[in-house]
Amino acid sequence: MTSLHLSEVHRIRLEQVLSEALPLQEIGTSKLHEAMRYSALAGGKRIRPSLVYASGQALNIPIQALDRIAVAIECIHAYSLVHDDLPAMDDDDLRRGLPTAHKAFGEATAILSGDALQAYAFDWLSEPIEGIKAEHQLKLIKVLSAASGSRGMVGGQAIDLASVGISLTEKQLEVMHAHKTGALINASVMMPSYCNDSVTDEQRTALNSYADAIGLAFQVQDDILDIESDTETLGKQQGSDLAANKPTYPSILGMAGAKQKLESLHDEALTALSGFGSEADLLRNIARFIVKRIK
Amino acid sequence: MTSLHLSEVHRIRLEQVLSEALPLQEIGTSKLHEAMRYSALAGGKRIRPSLVYASGQALNIPIQALDRIAVAIECIHAYSLVHDDLPAMDDDDLRRGLPTAHKAFGEATAILSGDALQAYAFDWLSEPIEGIKAEHQLKLIKVLSAASGSRGMVGGQAIDLASVGISLTEKQLEVMHAHKTGALINASVMMPSYCNDSVTDEQRTALNSYADAIGLAFQVQDDILDIESDTETLGKQQGSDLAANKPTYPSILGMAGAKQKLESLHDEALTALSGFGSEADLLRNIARFIVKRIK
Repeated sequence: MTSLHLSEVHRIRLEQVLSEALPLQEIGTSKLHEAMRYSALAGGKRIRPSLVYASGQALNIPIQALDRIAVAIECIHAYSLVHDDLPAMDDDDLRRGLPTAHKAFGEATAILSGDALQAYAFDWLSEPIEGIKAEHQLKLIKVLSAASGSRGMVGGQAIDLASVGISLTEKQLEVMHAHKTGALINASVMMPSYCNDSVTDEQRTALNSYADAIGLAFQVQDDILDIESDTETLGKQQGSDLAANKPTYPSILGMAGAKQKLESLHDEALTALSGFGSEADLLRNIARFIVKRIK
Repeated sequence: MTSLHLSEVHRIRLEQVLSEALPLQEIGTSKLHEAMRYSALAGGKRIRPSLVYASGQALNIPIQALDRIAVAIECIHAYSLVHDDLPAMDDDDLRRGLPTAHKAFGEATAILSGDALQAYAFDWLSEPIEGIKAEHQLKLIKVLSAASGSRGMVGGQAIDLASVGISLTEKQLEVMHAHKTGALINASVMMPSYCNDSVTDEQRTALNSYADAIGLAFQVQDDILDIESDTETLGKQQGSDLAANKPTYPSILGMAGAKQKLESLHDEALTALSGFGSEADLLRNIARFIVKRIK
């Protein structure tokens, strides 16, 4: 639990499963498939799939179900980054140290590759999974589609766009992030809990509190890093929130206040897991990673 | 069967169910929800949902399942039009006689409303449906996501973009349309067949042939109308394919050849249904509508 790294085993597993899941570049519309693979396989912290595997470990869920969930969530996450980076949205040139999808493939292909990655998430999640009941799989799709849509991630992006140049209260900022990044992080932690009838309501409530705390902590640390880190470490433009006049936690709470909030969210996350034993250590490790990460 | 109109009953039913299904404009991110409703509820021929109800009638599928399928498919169709109209794609200002979504709401909101409509299709289809088994619902999601993705509709759009200014063979043009519009039309006809274990393989094969014939016929007639109709009747810019230097059936086969192809596809569609009785009359009517329509 002292590591500042996510599980390498799970990151490597995810990248292998994801690479096998996505259509090969050689198949059919090759440029589109190349763009999909470029965006989904270009690294990144893989926090969401790590949460899927960690939550699954805490609940003893079969690995083949976790693979499916992890790939589906990462496809949604990858598509959202491609569309967020577009000229009409955040207009970013750099992502994970590489040209953004529209810079590498053109805007039309970037839009389409995002659309196809979203469809692919549900394609992948609707193929029967050995050992998982069909009604449980339906619930997984329900949770992921709700977390991705207008009342989840996309809704958060819409609030974000509407908030540029406006001064938000801390509460309003929290609502935005609960949608924009929180919803998908929550889904990553909660989806494994719907694979098995033996998971209790108490376990789900605990995981839900954990997920909400780390989801917000992730964003607070993102805002801090946007000020304190540098472009090379981040793999994206440092200071871009400031430049875009976006409301952030440091701008509302001050830097010391933001760091204090981060610590208290970390405590909340660990407290939520107090009913779990060592089977939840991966979840605890991720909470620590999220508040201590430098990029 | 002499009508040149689709079933008014089903169009009205679809629009009511769709309006109830979509989040109200008043909820949460109001501009995003307004844009979603604008694009999904702004009329259109509603051919895909009509096919769902007609296929469901031929197979005696419960209406509540058809409502779900029809709404989900129309959400996918609506999102695809919003994204296809974007400046980086076809750059269209007019759709169904109204400003396109990006003209009415701005480009960022248009992109997001398309993304959210796609998520909403799977959200709506993963909510349990009374009288339909969970494994059948999973199959519906599988068929729709595959038809929408990089090997279906989005793949077709990618081929279309890559084909501008290039001269295609008739076969290549057919492959493009089989993806771009054919896949979703096929899903509209086939999805009802997966709601019920009593549907036979012969019935599915017949419906599949019907769907492929009318899917292609739809596109041939679209190409003919682009030349022979006018902007006011079409509700979109007449001659836009020609202006964009896109390959079309009249450009490859000549106008007489294109019209002959249309008739032979109509015959194919009716022949495919020969094993059905009057329960398939709605399907026959739609085939006729597709080849005779004037917009």
